[in-house]
Amino acid sequence: MAKKKQFAILGLGRFGSSVAYTLTNMGYDVLAVDSNEERVEEVSKEVTHAVQANVTSEKNLQALGIRNFDVVIVAIGEDIQASIMATILVKDMGVEHVVVKSQDKMHGEVLKRIGADRVIFPEWDMGCRVAHNLATTNILDYIELSPEYSLAEVSVPTKMVGKTPQELDLRAKYGVTVLAIKRGNDINISPKANAQFHKSDVLIVVGKQGDINRLEELNS
Amino acid sequence: MAKKKQFAILGLGRFGSSVAYTLTNMGYDVLAVDSNEERVEEVSKEVTHAVQANVTSEKNLQALGIRNFDVVIVAIGEDIQASIMATILVKDMGVEHVVVKSQDKMHGEVLKRIGADRVIFPEWDMGCRVAHNLATTNILDYIELSPEYSLAEVSVPTKMVGKTPQELDLRAKYGVTVLAIKRGNDINISPKANAQFHKSDVLIVVGKQGDINRLEELNS
Ligand SMILES: Nc1ncnc2c1ncn2[C@@H]1O[C@H](COP(=O)(O)OP(=O)(O)OP(=O)(O)O)[C@@H](O)[C@H]1O
Ligand SMILES: Nc1ncnc2c1ncn2[C@@H]1O[C@H](COP(=O)(O)OP(=O)(O)OP(=O)(O)O)[C@@H](O)[C@H]1O
Ligand SMILES: [Ca+2]
Ligand SMILES: [Ca+2]
Ligand SMILES: [Ca+2]
Ligand SMILES: [Ca+2]
Repeated sequence: MAKKKQFAILGLGRFGSSVAYTLTNMGYDVLAVDSNEERVEEVSKEVTHAVQANVTSEKNLQALGIRNFDVVIVAIGEDIQASIMATILVKDMGVEHVVVKSQDKMHGEVLKRIGADRVIFPEWDMGCRVAHNLATTNILDYIELSPEYSLAEVSVPTKMVGKTPQELDLRAKYGVTVLAIKRGNDINISPKANAQFHKSDVLIVVGKQGDINRLEELNS
Repeated sequence: MAKKKQFAILGLGRFGSSVAYTLTNMGYDVLAVDSNEERVEEVSKEVTHAVQANVTSEKNLQALGIRNFDVVIVAIGEDIQASIMATILVKDMGVEHVVVKSQDKMHGEVLKRIGADRVIFPEWDMGCRVAHNLATTNILDYIELSPEYSLAEVSVPTKMVGKTPQELDLRAKYGVTVLAIKRGNDINISPKANAQFHKSDVLIVVGKQGDINRLEELNS
């Protein structure tokens, strides 16, 4: 088994601290750094190593041994200059995978040019996800598999309750395939063609985006 | 077919404007409101109706006809008081579905008590997603189906290339079930037990979170 990846998070706003907590909960050792003492104190309750330091100083980054980390996440938003400076320093130290939170398109462009391996727009990406989720009331979550196909978690449309995939002729009439049925905490994988849908079942379906969206209209 | 849902977005920061753009691109009419003139100007290029107004004023919300909207998204972050005030006013006007961006736990608690139908923590949620994504190199995307089970999109582990689900005894030995195989833009749904995995296949699997994570270790 491989050595566990080492993560450092520079900047502990909402996004940065969420990354730090989640990785900690997944069992990773995490170094969390912020210039703000209160933030560091707060995060140190949950994370193995929390350090107060200004990450735009090369000396500070060296003292933290930043070059030994596999992945460094720069999560400084408002102070765009600090975000850019920290990214340059960390890349220059030879860290292989540097992921940076970006404020806007322009910031993102600069980050890519100076060598950020991945640029993330958390507010923007969540806005897209939430919009999709709000436009549809049945579709609970989804993964875009290809430009054409999606996989979605869908509340069973009222009209389908008590019916089976066979009776409904789901694949032919609706263009979707039910991969699994979630009932409470149970999951029925590859359900039989005669499995009856219950009220409050959640279906895992795959199909073209348009066909999945059409499931919505069944409720109107 | 049902009448199209009407959406209003109050506050056009990164999150709010992303919601507004995405809904517009999905074909919805969107009303976008911000007190900041520049933001309104920027967003008005892409969205049907963009209006400059302070949304903590009841009179302004009435003039905008807010009570006629099906879904209102309050996307004001830093000014927590404005976020709370706008939420109360919009709920009092009888809007059925009010979704509010929250800054932190405390803000979120208050929003729920005053009747927000859904509270969203975009930075926090994206932090979780990004952490999962960074910790795993094979797992491309995932949906948490229950506290125990997840569905994930996983690059086929190198060791499994050329093998079949049957040979690998995937369900018994790894605790995961392959629901579909993605090969380029093709999707093979409910693949046969003797379907051979190709290099660069992407598998759609369901299983316990720990079992899915263990697929990672196969690459090391
Ligand atoms: N030079 C620096 N060195 C270390 N930490 C810094 C530096 N500059 C800013 N930070 C820290 O980065 C954190 C995140 O910054 P900021 O709040 O601007 O980001 P944000 O993008 O608004 O965050 P959020 O994820 O909450 O939206 C803050 O806690 C701040 O103290
Ligand atoms: N009373 C108000 N009426 C209308 N718009 C407002 C009001 N107060 C704040 N706004 C607008 O809300 C928008 C979002 O606010 P803010 O930038 O504080 O949120 P944020 O949570 O930091 O956003 P982001 O999604 O970018 O992280 C801003 O464009 C601001 O002008
Ligand atoms: Ca901030
Ligand atoms: Ca933010
Ligand atoms: Ca939904
Ligand atoms: Ca990944």
